[in-house]
Amino acid sequence: MSEVVRKAKLAKETTGVLASLTTSQKNEALLVMAEALRTEAPSIIAANAEDLERGRRNGTSESLLDRLALDPGRIDSIAEGLQQIAELPDPVGDRLETIERPNGLTIDKLRVPLGVIGIIYEARPNVTVDAAGLCLKTGNAVVLRGGSSALSSNRRIVEVLHIALAGTALPPHALQLIEDADRASVDEMLKLNGLLDVIIPRGGSSLIQNVVLNATVPVIETGAGICHTYIDESALPEMALSISLNAKAQRPSVCNSMETLLIHRDYAKVHLPALAEAFRDANVELRGCPETVALVPWALPATLEDYATEYNDYILNLKIVSGLDEAMLHIAQFGTSHSECIVTENKNYAARFLQEVDAAAVYHNASTRFTDGFEFGFGAEIGISTQKLHARGPMGLPALTSTKYKIYGTGQVRG
Amino acid sequence: MSEVVRKAKLAKETTGVLASLTTSQKNEALLVMAEALRTEAPSIIAANAEDLERGRRNGTSESLLDRLALDPGRIDSIAEGLQQIAELPDPVGDRLETIERPNGLTIDKLRVPLGVIGIIYEARPNVTVDAAGLCLKTGNAVVLRGGSSALSSNRRIVEVLHIALAGTALPPHALQLIEDADRASVDEMLKLNGLLDVIIPRGGSSLIQNVVLNATVPVIETGAGICHTYIDESALPEMALSISLNAKAQRPSVCNSMETLLIHRDYAKVHLPALAEAFRDANVELRGCPETVALVPWALPATLEDYATEYNDYILNLKIVSGLDEAMLHIAQFGTSHSECIVTENKNYAARFLQEVDAAAVYHNASTRFTDGFEFGFGAEIGISTQKLHARGPMGLPALTSTKYKIYGTGQVRG
Repeated sequence: MSEVVRKAKLAKETTGVLASLTTSQKNEALLVMAEALRTEAPSIIAANAEDLERGRRNGTSESLLDRLALDPGRIDSIAEGLQQIAELPDPVGDRLETIERPNGLTIDKLRVPLGVIGIIYEARPNVTVDAAGLCLKTGNAVVLRGGSSALSSNRRIVEVLHIALAGTALPPHALQLIEDADRASVDEMLKLNGLLDVIIPRGGSSLIQNVVLNATVPVIETGAGICHTYIDESALPEMALSISLNAKAQRPSVCNSMETLLIHRDYAKVHLPALAEAFRDANVELRGCPETVALVPWALPATLEDYATEYNDYILNLKIVSGLDEAMLHIAQFGTSHSECIVTENKNYAARFLQEVDAAAVYHNASTRFTDGFEFGFGAEIGISTQKLHARGPMGLPALTSTKYKIYGTGQVRG
Repeated sequence: MSEVVRKAKLAKETTGVLASLTTSQKNEALLVMAEALRTEAPSIIAANAEDLERGRRNGTSESLLDRLALDPGRIDSIAEGLQQIAELPDPVGDRLETIERPNGLTIDKLRVPLGVIGIIYEARPNVTVDAAGLCLKTGNAVVLRGGSSALSSNRRIVEVLHIALAGTALPPHALQLIEDADRASVDEMLKLNGLLDVIIPRGGSSLIQNVVLNATVPVIETGAGICHTYIDESALPEMALSISLNAKAQRPSVCNSMETLLIHRDYAKVHLPALAEAFRDANVELRGCPETVALVPWALPATLEDYATEYNDYILNLKIVSGLDEAMLHIAQFGTSHSECIVTENKNYAARFLQEVDAAAVYHNASTRFTDGFEFGFGAEIGISTQKLHARGPMGLPALTSTKYKIYGTGQVRG
């Protein structure tokens, strides 16, 4: 039996116990896990040093090494994350609906764990702890498959958590780490129907596309964000500048940052030069439609491919449009249904944009950067779903649950 | 461009209009569709005659021909189904949650259509109308791929509905029928990410397995049901007999019927002979464990494969168990997480069974045959989900929706 099948089976065997744990049993386990990470910080940092050393030998970039690196401060904040998860309300057991039927049947719809969740992710070892914490809090078992560059760190972290869990009501086997660094172990997870109930990929677009295109297990697709801001003719210039600058430059590397700014022609004639200056001051490279380039000579010409690119960088497309309809057409053509914004003082236009644009999050007069589980007040985030099934947008704890109908009868049969 | 891509694109182009239709516009379209089916019943029956004739030539069984056949009465009840869908509450636009953030953002979570739904199904032409009605009511476009044996009927039905819709606010292209009878058209639908938002298979287990194993588009898995009833020692004999007989024999061909009856040893010693008689009187063939065969000599021996078989027929496995734990172990091993029942007067056992058995619907003292959208009071049913993602158990109209966050700001940016 392969490592993947063996560990997925061990995880699945714990689902009955997990589903029946009380909230306080789960919270206690999370706190014990947090404490163990702090106590074992030295051994985790030692394991992390192996990853960093191997990374340096393989010529990994400094910025990736920085993401991979752990120190006492980072481990403390990872442990702090577990404590925060412990403080969140537990959705499992919530009664969503009670149906009383004329024949006397009572039907309760209750939240239950999903079962076994597979998480496939890349380098950063903090995801190991965060994903484990969110899954266990919701009574799910979890099979983690992290990137090989963080394998030593992940292995030590999971060892520490296993030892910690042995003293709690939460069965240690509920947390499994696939150590096989071969790509085949990912392929095997993707086809593990019957053992995994869902797979959530977290990482770059090639990782996510591989999961979406090859999994037979149900997937929650996360990630890709080509987000737009449309500045309407009636927008307040100061607000338009502040929102679009924030959406692009506050943290360009994330999926909810803006890639293309659409501007009403009449607004552009008056305000585009100042806007462009502000972006240049923020070190943002501009690529524009021909009209943009006429107004901002130092902007590069934008290609169709540019409009279809998620830069995750200090680069922005600018396009001048005739109005709301052309803006919405552009978004329909190039958007990824993640986060889209209109800046306008016209309430009818705002209402139409929010109604007609098909995206997980549509904004009137606020930065797309708010599409985030913490900013929405969920207190956690397992990812941002860009599909329409099961969950859409930032996913908090309820996205990690399913439902179950309990039906209470007194001998009813169907006629 | 293939027929599948061309029609899926036409369907997708209507999703903006569909999402903005009012409930009364959609209901009016459904009523016009119903009326057109009644008016055009003769031409639909003529097209159906072609299917029946072709079926006879190909040696189709009489029972399949009967499922395929349309007559004025059946068309009337199909039209009646559309009228009933028109009367149901429309979930689209429902506000599920409003979040007020400390920074002044207001976040509304609203129900929206899924987008374009692909339905892959088998012979019966009533599914064509029923699926179309449920999808359109919830503002979704729908791409139907029915079985080739009903192609003439389906083609004429969709022609009639297209003509009917031309006089309504609902764009006719929202309803598409794939006429290519080649299996390749199914394979093409399964990979249509970006054009189809979800695929729902309706039919036998080989059709469903093909969809689950080959689709890259998200799927809602429906169907397979190996359902159990456990009769505990304390069960009332009359109730146990009536529930188990109903679960098996009231309509054995459907997924929520029982395949295996588990009986407490002490109960079996006293009551099994009478139970077995009742099943024999209902023409149910019995296959039993060795202890069962000792008590009911005319029962055949059950194999492990029998316990793993969804008979959908007048055949029942009987197994004598030592108690609740053995019963739940058997269900965990052989069940398909569809519908499971315990008959008992012991409230603690009932509570444990309903909590610990992992299934979409778990019953105390009622027949598993109630797992059905109509019996749950949903007024409709697009299928019974046997997966945990998105929807679980009978799916009514809300299962055909997604959600969207509308965020109202006054210039907020992220710090």
